[in-house]
Amino acid sequence: MVEIIDGKKEAKHLNEITKQHIEKLAKSGIVPGIAVIIVGHDQASERYVRMKDKKARSLGIYSIMKHFENDISETDLIKSINELNHDPKINGILVQLPLPSHINEQNIIQSIDPKKDVDGFHPLNIGKLFLNLNEQFPVACTPKGIMTLLAAYQVNLNGANVVVIGRSPIVGKPLLALLLNANASVTCLHSHSENITLHTKKADLVISAVGNANTLNDNHFKPGAYVIDAGQNLDINGKLVGDVSYDQNSKNIGFITPVPGGVGPMTIATLMQQTVEMCEWSHVE
Amino acid sequence: MVEIIDGKKEAKHLNEITKQHIEKLAKSGIVPGIAVIIVGHDQASERYVRMKDKKARSLGIYSIMKHFENDISETDLIKSINELNHDPKINGILVQLPLPSHINEQNIIQSIDPKKDVDGFHPLNIGKLFLNLNEQFPVACTPKGIMTLLAAYQVNLNGANVVVIGRSPIVGKPLLALLLNANASVTCLHSHSENITLHTKKADLVISAVGNANTLNDNHFKPGAYVIDAGQNLDINGKLVGDVSYDQNSKNIGFITPVPGGVGPMTIATLMQQTVEMCEWSHVE
Repeated sequence: MVEIIDGKKEAKHLNEITKQHIEKLAKSGIVPGIAVIIVGHDQASERYVRMKDKKARSLGIYSIMKHFENDISETDLIKSINELNHDPKINGILVQLPLPSHINEQNIIQSIDPKKDVDGFHPLNIGKLFLNLNEQFPVACTPKGIMTLLAAYQVNLNGANVVVIGRSPIVGKPLLALLLNANASVTCLHSHSENITLHTKKADLVISAVGNANTLNDNHFKPGAYVIDAGQNLDINGKLVGDVSYDQNSKNIGFITPVPGGVGPMTIATLMQQTVEMCEWSHVE
Repeated sequence: MVEIIDGKKEAKHLNEITKQHIEKLAKSGIVPGIAVIIVGHDQASERYVRMKDKKARSLGIYSIMKHFENDISETDLIKSINELNHDPKINGILVQLPLPSHINEQNIIQSIDPKKDVDGFHPLNIGKLFLNLNEQFPVACTPKGIMTLLAAYQVNLNGANVVVIGRSPIVGKPLLALLLNANASVTCLHSHSENITLHTKKADLVISAVGNANTLNDNHFKPGAYVIDAGQNLDINGKLVGDVSYDQNSKNIGFITPVPGGVGPMTIATLMQQTVEMCEWSHVE
């Protein structure tokens, strides 16, 4: 029997801890704040941004949204980010990606004050993560949430063989850093990799962040393997599915995060957690 | 028969190309400049710094050395770096590591203007490397030199299984990024890894940056494997040796870089190359 990891439950637990931190800050009259910037009217993005806003408010985080039309210039977008960089009420700034093609994504990301880069996408923060520096800095929320899940399930990463499939700047690459920092032996595979099974068959833990349904199945794993499915795909019926196809009787999978209900809820909970952490960091300095 | 890679020959070739770039810049009255900072009197460091200085001068690079006593304060060291940050004659600033224990290494590295960080150790540059950004930025010289060697020997990295042993910020981690950017499947092993052979036996290319003699031998590799030995160790007789023990009749090793005469010469040649590149980048901007 495959054990199904309950991401919703862990996210709820994380949100409760975050709420305690918010209440503690409130005693000193401090309210953590997040600003979300969205450009254009992509439905999925709008839905996602509203979900973040709602969750932030429900926890007692000050949340503002800046919604711009598709034709906003790069200069104006950067001007708006600069205002937020200097707004003492805002601890975390998040720009919903993707952006329209006339805007250079890196120029936008690098215009965010690294100390307010709640998504952890700024190259300075990515560099600090890979260097495993002994300081406080934000980390991309999906990978950070995955690490929280692994810790909750007491997965021993020290010396473990871990395979990460996918090398996106949002999931695969920060995960690579986090796993190395946790002393795992890490293999990173991607679209150019040949013979994925050669690697996954030996792995204690496989994390898939490919974005293609049915990328992996039970035959890819060794008995008892832990599987984190960070894929978010729509199947032919428009149903949200992950990268891994399996059923309760799959022989090799020890545990797996379901889609939906696994990594997804952890990402938003981690965004809330990190907003509050960044508020705390700004007040100790 | 094991093929021995001639790092000296490739370094000489690279220096010749660098010299051509310097001559071209000279026609516009531009001279690339490097500043090396050294603290204290570690003999190996002093020897290495003198070697860099000599090589730079021999190629026509403006080279200055700032030698400080062991008791220099962090503040004074940063002040000196700031002067170099603003010195238009200097394109590359290198602080010889390690530093005395009363100085925070990261504070020093992060005080270098990222555009003059010729060692590529600044977290902003490490981040850009991992993000594989489409801009010009410096990369740590040993890993960059290894990539130049691999290209010279026409090693196909696309989809290749590569194992990197070592995760230092100077060699292992930047290599990981460079190899991923070159579309290799990359496994990173280190002191906490168990069963190294499980990984190296399947690798098309193994790069060892451990810093321990006899870490690997012929039995670790699959037939025809390429091996880059980035180790620099002194054996019991005080002789410089690498991480890998082998002889000409080793069955599995296809080619290997010797120590000395492999990766070492490439590192200094790459430092020269990068000083000149950074000068060129500063003039196009």
